[in-house]
Amino acid sequence: MSFLREISPMVRSIHLPGQEVLMSRAARIRTELRQGIKKDFMELIDLSSSDIHSRGIKPISFLRQVMAACCYPSLLHSDRIPADARERARSLLTDSNGGSIGSYPPTGGMAKVRRSVSDFITRRDGGVPSIPEHIFLTTGSQQALTIFLKLLVSGEGPLRTGVLVPVPSYSTFSMALANQGGVMVPYYLCEEQGWALEMEELQRALQAARGHCNPMALYVINPGNPSGLVQSRKSIEEVIRFAAQERLFLLVDEVYQETIHGEDTEFVSYKRVLFEMGSPYSSTVELASFHSVSKGTFGEYGMRGGYVELVNLDPKVMEHALTFFNRDGSGTVMGQIALDILADPPQLGDPSYPLYSQEVQSIKNTLLSNVRRVHSVLNGVPGMSCQPIRGGLYAFVQLHLPQRVIEQAKEAGVEPDMMYCQRLLNEAGLCVVPGCECGQREGSYHIRFCIGVQEEIMEEVLQRLKSFHSHFMREFS
Amino acid sequence: MSFLREISPMVRSIHLPGQEVLMSRAARIRTELRQGIKKDFMELIDLSSSDIHSRGIKPISFLRQVMAACCYPSLLHSDRIPADARERARSLLTDSNGGSIGSYPPTGGMAKVRRSVSDFITRRDGGVPSIPEHIFLTTGSQQALTIFLKLLVSGEGPLRTGVLVPVPSYSTFSMALANQGGVMVPYYLCEEQGWALEMEELQRALQAARGHCNPMALYVINPGNPSGLVQSRKSIEEVIRFAAQERLFLLVDEVYQETIHGEDTEFVSYKRVLFEMGSPYSSTVELASFHSVSKGTFGEYGMRGGYVELVNLDPKVMEHALTFFNRDGSGTVMGQIALDILADPPQLGDPSYPLYSQEVQSIKNTLLSNVRRVHSVLNGVPGMSCQPIRGGLYAFVQLHLPQRVIEQAKEAGVEPDMMYCQRLLNEAGLCVVPGCECGQREGSYHIRFCIGVQEEIMEEVLQRLKSFHSHFMREFS
Repeated sequence: MSFLREISPMVRSIHLPGQEVLMSRAARIRTELRQGIKKDFMELIDLSSSDIHSRGIKPISFLRQVMAACCYPSLLHSDRIPADARERARSLLTDSNGGSIGSYPPTGGMAKVRRSVSDFITRRDGGVPSIPEHIFLTTGSQQALTIFLKLLVSGEGPLRTGVLVPVPSYSTFSMALANQGGVMVPYYLCEEQGWALEMEELQRALQAARGHCNPMALYVINPGNPSGLVQSRKSIEEVIRFAAQERLFLLVDEVYQETIHGEDTEFVSYKRVLFEMGSPYSSTVELASFHSVSKGTFGEYGMRGGYVELVNLDPKVMEHALTFFNRDGSGTVMGQIALDILADPPQLGDPSYPLYSQEVQSIKNTLLSNVRRVHSVLNGVPGMSCQPIRGGLYAFVQLHLPQRVIEQAKEAGVEPDMMYCQRLLNEAGLCVVPGCECGQREGSYHIRFCIGVQEEIMEEVLQRLKSFHSHFMREFS
Repeated sequence: MSFLREISPMVRSIHLPGQEVLMSRAARIRTELRQGIKKDFMELIDLSSSDIHSRGIKPISFLRQVMAACCYPSLLHSDRIPADARERARSLLTDSNGGSIGSYPPTGGMAKVRRSVSDFITRRDGGVPSIPEHIFLTTGSQQALTIFLKLLVSGEGPLRTGVLVPVPSYSTFSMALANQGGVMVPYYLCEEQGWALEMEELQRALQAARGHCNPMALYVINPGNPSGLVQSRKSIEEVIRFAAQERLFLLVDEVYQETIHGEDTEFVSYKRVLFEMGSPYSSTVELASFHSVSKGTFGEYGMRGGYVELVNLDPKVMEHALTFFNRDGSGTVMGQIALDILADPPQLGDPSYPLYSQEVQSIKNTLLSNVRRVHSVLNGVPGMSCQPIRGGLYAFVQLHLPQRVIEQAKEAGVEPDMMYCQRLLNEAGLCVVPGCECGQREGSYHIRFCIGVQEEIMEEVLQRLKSFHSHFMREFS
């Protein structure tokens, strides 16, 4: 007896993404290294995800102190935890049902945390009001996006819901969209212009989609993953005007808003721009903005916490959203606690402020230093080019591969940049993601890697990459 | 602009379940009480869910000590945390990527925790082997069940996947099944026989389903929610033989395995019985068993942790399952830590053993005492009857309602037991779930409430319920 014969055909058609193929190979290499098998490298470095703690970047102490005291309230009387962290834990416990973070949080999330998030958004957006009841706490931005796709996607054939999706982007979103039965409508970011989002391209994509599907939403990632683009206010205004004109729902992934590199770049939220554009935009354009504690300087992947803020939604739709968020879970209490600290960190004068700001600043300095090194090293390597990384946690580097590489990959039935990544992994012990996983213009090839890693490791990464690359290029020249 | 016009029709057809209607009314009553509005009761008591911490049952100290030290590793040197809890935290941190529980756990879950769970199952099942690689850690049993339904459900019309589901059960499972497009095939537990699972009824349900759908799986809840049934070994053997003969996949919800009331009742797992039945059953019947840290004496709802163990699955199906568990997230690190403690609690001789066993025993005593009080009080109330509650966290009490109640409810367009629950909430401040939400034989009416609450509160609940009930019955007699 086996139910394989009857397994859902939709499931059978799901293939293992290339990133997982690489990761399972990476796991095997790690085992071989532990077994003492000799390789050209002592240690494998995995830069395929933005999970910075896994690469030794330390968690923020204040956050972890509050969590510890929430877990074990006896610590509310221990001087091992600073007074302001204990105070915060006390107020979070008061807001938990029965005074235990083991109880289930209310639909939408803990009231105190929703208020903190709402205040955070208002401050961030220069006073644009934010309503706690329009904020839903989730187990992360991906879960929130998936819930939205469930709300949005319907229809068959040419009436199937279409969503405009940037290329390149990361594969989780397109997989979730496909899984809901939606149609991905790709729009290409302009690499030569630092991965700019250009209006003509959005227009082209939308026109091309009409007749094939029913385009209903526009997905943007700002700061970009993997592009590193941070949109200017002007660019955001253009996108909002386009969405208004074409009656598109705006799904705005802003999970990298804390990681902006350099002082000449600024993050401006879509919501802020929308409100500052005034009527009719500010009262009509429907928008959902996503954020998470997994990214940025917190990097608390394992905690699973995020939020979505809904703007200008029909009250009826809000009701449906509530049903969904209720049914699919409003996330973990730990994730919500992390979100509370993200939204309401220690302030100047608080006992924990000096350490907190020093820890955050140190991570930001590391990121900025890594970004500079990536630019200066890789842009000097023949056959590589890297656009400015203005925000986010990724470098997305173009590989100018010789024709012979492309031919050999084709013979092997594999994408050329996937072949490059496999060899980079096997020969140099670096695990990165091929551009084909993110989407890219035909005939162009890329690799994506995370820049959230200690400076000395980034140096090692760049040296290995440079040396492997010149080897590889020589072999095929 | 509003996308309501285009919202997925599947979504629009989802109605707010009755439980949520009651819960939002309960929230309003709580607000009114806070505002000083006078009612016949001082405090609202919500027994609608099994969230025991929300009702003041305290978390297990050892678990919370380990969690606190994992969150904030400076506590590894604090004598506020017992030595064995610190030791456990150290070993869990060693097994976390980068030594931080903020990093993302590997697909399937942390290796150490999967081993603990596997050892726990082997011990529980008297030596029946359990393979860590066949155990997947999840954010809870509901997520794991949903993933399984995604794997299982396919087809259209008479080829749509059918799943046999017990009546009564809780509504989350049937909602998830409907949401995946599967067909619910109800089989009725026999109330007069203490909610026994009878083979003739399973046969009847299966026959009735054939031709309408393609029955592929059998869902059982043991111990039962809300039935309180704990199946005997003989009953489990019968179900396994039936599943083997009819080629049904067994989905076994065993989340209440820790809460068995009284010494004359024993929990035996389906897997143990399956293996002890020997060939051909032990090597052919496909089975998935679900467990969770939200239930039982732990009650750690907010942590979101559970596991599923897969038995006799085709390796190809395992591969697909892996893809799904990978894509939909392998849960939170906190949930996995809680699971590690559930599977591997302090042992006799460990510093934390005395407190741990005292805390667990105290919760078990409370439950047993509450079960006895429910039986003795409610079975003496005219118009109420309650079958023995052998396991789990719920009482499911039959209401023998007068014809006039039924007529008045019909006129109001509401189920009679829903009307009863609404009045019970408004007039006596008790929030319980009507039987119509769980499913019940036509013409029978029930209420479900959780027995996981301190003894003095249970006493108060029973007094309010008894007094409301006699009032209500007099009004309609």
